[in-house]
Amino acid sequence: MHTTTSMARLDPASLDAADPLAPYRERFLLPEGVIYLDGNSLGPASHAALDAVDQAAQSEWAQGLIRSWNTAGWFDMPMAAGRLIARLVGAADGQVAVCDSVTINLYKVLQAAMALRPGRRTIVAEASSFPTDLYIAQGVVANIQGARLRLAGRDAETLEELIDEDTAVVLVNHVDYRSGALRDMVGLTAKAHAAGALAIWDLCHSAGALAVELDACEADFAVGCTYKYLNCGPGAPAFVYAAARHHAQLRQPLSGWWGHARPFEFETDYAPATGIKAFLTGTPPVLSLRALMGALADWNDVDMDQLREKSVRLTQYFMDLVEDRCAAHGLVSITPRDPGARGSQVSLRFEHAYPAMQALIAKGLIGDFRAPDVMRFGFTPLYISFSDVARAVEILKEVLDTELWRDEAYAAKAAVT
Amino acid sequence: MHTTTSMARLDPASLDAADPLAPYRERFLLPEGVIYLDGNSLGPASHAALDAVDQAAQSEWAQGLIRSWNTAGWFDMPMAAGRLIARLVGAADGQVAVCDSVTINLYKVLQAAMALRPGRRTIVAEASSFPTDLYIAQGVVANIQGARLRLAGRDAETLEELIDEDTAVVLVNHVDYRSGALRDMVGLTAKAHAAGALAIWDLCHSAGALAVELDACEADFAVGCTYKYLNCGPGAPAFVYAAARHHAQLRQPLSGWWGHARPFEFETDYAPATGIKAFLTGTPPVLSLRALMGALADWNDVDMDQLREKSVRLTQYFMDLVEDRCAAHGLVSITPRDPGARGSQVSLRFEHAYPAMQALIAKGLIGDFRAPDVMRFGFTPLYISFSDVARAVEILKEVLDTELWRDEAYAAKAAVT
Repeated sequence: MHTTTSMARLDPASLDAADPLAPYRERFLLPEGVIYLDGNSLGPASHAALDAVDQAAQSEWAQGLIRSWNTAGWFDMPMAAGRLIARLVGAADGQVAVCDSVTINLYKVLQAAMALRPGRRTIVAEASSFPTDLYIAQGVVANIQGARLRLAGRDAETLEELIDEDTAVVLVNHVDYRSGALRDMVGLTAKAHAAGALAIWDLCHSAGALAVELDACEADFAVGCTYKYLNCGPGAPAFVYAAARHHAQLRQPLSGWWGHARPFEFETDYAPATGIKAFLTGTPPVLSLRALMGALADWNDVDMDQLREKSVRLTQYFMDLVEDRCAAHGLVSITPRDPGARGSQVSLRFEHAYPAMQALIAKGLIGDFRAPDVMRFGFTPLYISFSDVARAVEILKEVLDTELWRDEAYAAKAAVT
Repeated sequence: MHTTTSMARLDPASLDAADPLAPYRERFLLPEGVIYLDGNSLGPASHAALDAVDQAAQSEWAQGLIRSWNTAGWFDMPMAAGRLIARLVGAADGQVAVCDSVTINLYKVLQAAMALRPGRRTIVAEASSFPTDLYIAQGVVANIQGARLRLAGRDAETLEELIDEDTAVVLVNHVDYRSGALRDMVGLTAKAHAAGALAIWDLCHSAGALAVELDACEADFAVGCTYKYLNCGPGAPAFVYAAARHHAQLRQPLSGWWGHARPFEFETDYAPATGIKAFLTGTPPVLSLRALMGALADWNDVDMDQLREKSVRLTQYFMDLVEDRCAAHGLVSITPRDPGARGSQVSLRFEHAYPAMQALIAKGLIGDFRAPDVMRFGFTPLYISFSDVARAVEILKEVLDTELWRDEAYAAKAAVT
């Protein structure tokens, strides 16, 4: 068992004063009176992101019109955005592009990986994966004769038990969206490779939360979200990574004109572009992509080791304060105590999690609920302070002490929970 | 041969004065000194669209944060946008959704159609289709044993010759992107059905250009672009249509969580939503989708018959003026003279089309070039006037008379042509 000295007695103002990332907070717009611990679901707007959208809409679109494909660099944005993300996920040049959604990119990488392992028919994943990963894997296996999806947590206890000589692909969520548990990228990738399989990593809850090292871990493919920790805007396009060693054989069936070697020759037959560009499909949503470009500029000077260190301390501080201040209320953390085994969120199980989260939001503390009984809090080092954490736990304590969650106003479920 | 009285001698100011759609122009921002005949490639910004983006970025994202999924209606946008488009393409409720790109939606409808015709292995299309249609069809057939793509213009002269008892799907571009020729939706759909095949219509160059009648024509599936004639913003998400009679059997492999019957139950197994919603995949690009919602509001009071009538007259006026004013220059129109056989563009073949188009753009007339030798001009009834057309032909005449296209400044090819 991992033990650390509790941070519960530390003064938040002193912690903030010593925080080298504190100045980044000014880059973001955060509403008055809100403590935002849901950046793991939708990151906030930065001034740079909003300025970029405004420029794209008012000037590039309205004034530049069709000319902006060239003059404003629209055409190169998917690759330019990929270059900005590459550093954050430990990828050398030419391996990352921004396009489509995580869901669509999962389909591409699963299809590409299956094509690279033609004799093998099994995709192995965790039942606890974010559901779209499983749904897309089901869509892929349904169209390949004899193919199947086997799940840790259903067909066996662990991923390792399921990896065998029929395994084509091991698909892993780097950080579990519900518990915040961080999977071992080096170890699991090595196990997949030892069995002759490929490893696909879903970085939705790790990109921008910690220094991902795709190349160093020898990952084969990866996908990731840009609208969570990367703060690129609601529903911003996703990224996709393919290791350079696979580029010569890349083949995926979403063979759209943006992934063509010569899109403006308007040829009759598809010929894939070289490298990761073959994963592009159709015309990207430029306004959303411009917001993303603006938001990514905020990351260029971020020290990812400092980011991770602060993330570990923010999450520990929260866990220690909850234990210290809310001990009477039966909260059970499902997030690993070992800092090396968690991402940048803390998930608390509570019988009345749904109305309790609604009450917290009404009190100005925004986290989120995940069925059936999890209150989830994300800690994002660029704009969350230790004072925010201390204040958040006081609000949590108040809601629990007063049983505010019993108020019927907090019972009604919204469309998006 | 279709004959009409030439409009070349008509006074543009009088034509504008009698135009019932003239007041719509005020809704759009058009740069000073530009005649924009490229709305068939990228429509201009309207005030409503720009206001919607600004609201989405500054207020919904920056202030509302995660709460805006419910409070700003983000979650319902794909279906709400589909409801707004339905009227414009002749679809009864519940058959249209807005999601992903045309390319991705083509993949879904082709897969769904192939699944509905399990014994059949052939997709029939035209070699002159917009290339991404062909590339995606190639991606689909590559993954289905024995499947093949047969093309009119390559494997036979006409679509009709290729439709036989092995045809699963006939995929047709309603308006040809290069020539502007309008295909017969009633007739071709009936021919596909008579052979036991399904008909998929690509409406990229007809939606917003004329009154499409998907239900009345008994189309099976359709896809379409929103950033051309619908003016929804650069790379705005596309729409997809599936006839209600197919909804009970809809099956497509891009089975993401947004197409799940209960996305926020986070179930392990995919279960498709009812109806067209099963075509949704992942989280949509909200900022781009908001622009689209704003832009679609501009369409709510548009009389589609008036739109078509003006479109026919704008294109005829242009063709008549070109014949009258530019006869010496060897331009060859590849757009049908019969108004019932063309969409809302005119395409002129010219040996020096690329530098000539660059020269026109430099003179303030924006059209576009399509390889190898086509100058393409789009006529969009909501914001183009007859005076614009007359002025455009004068600019064209000047560029041709002075051979301005010989200037070496216009020879260099840009990334996007």
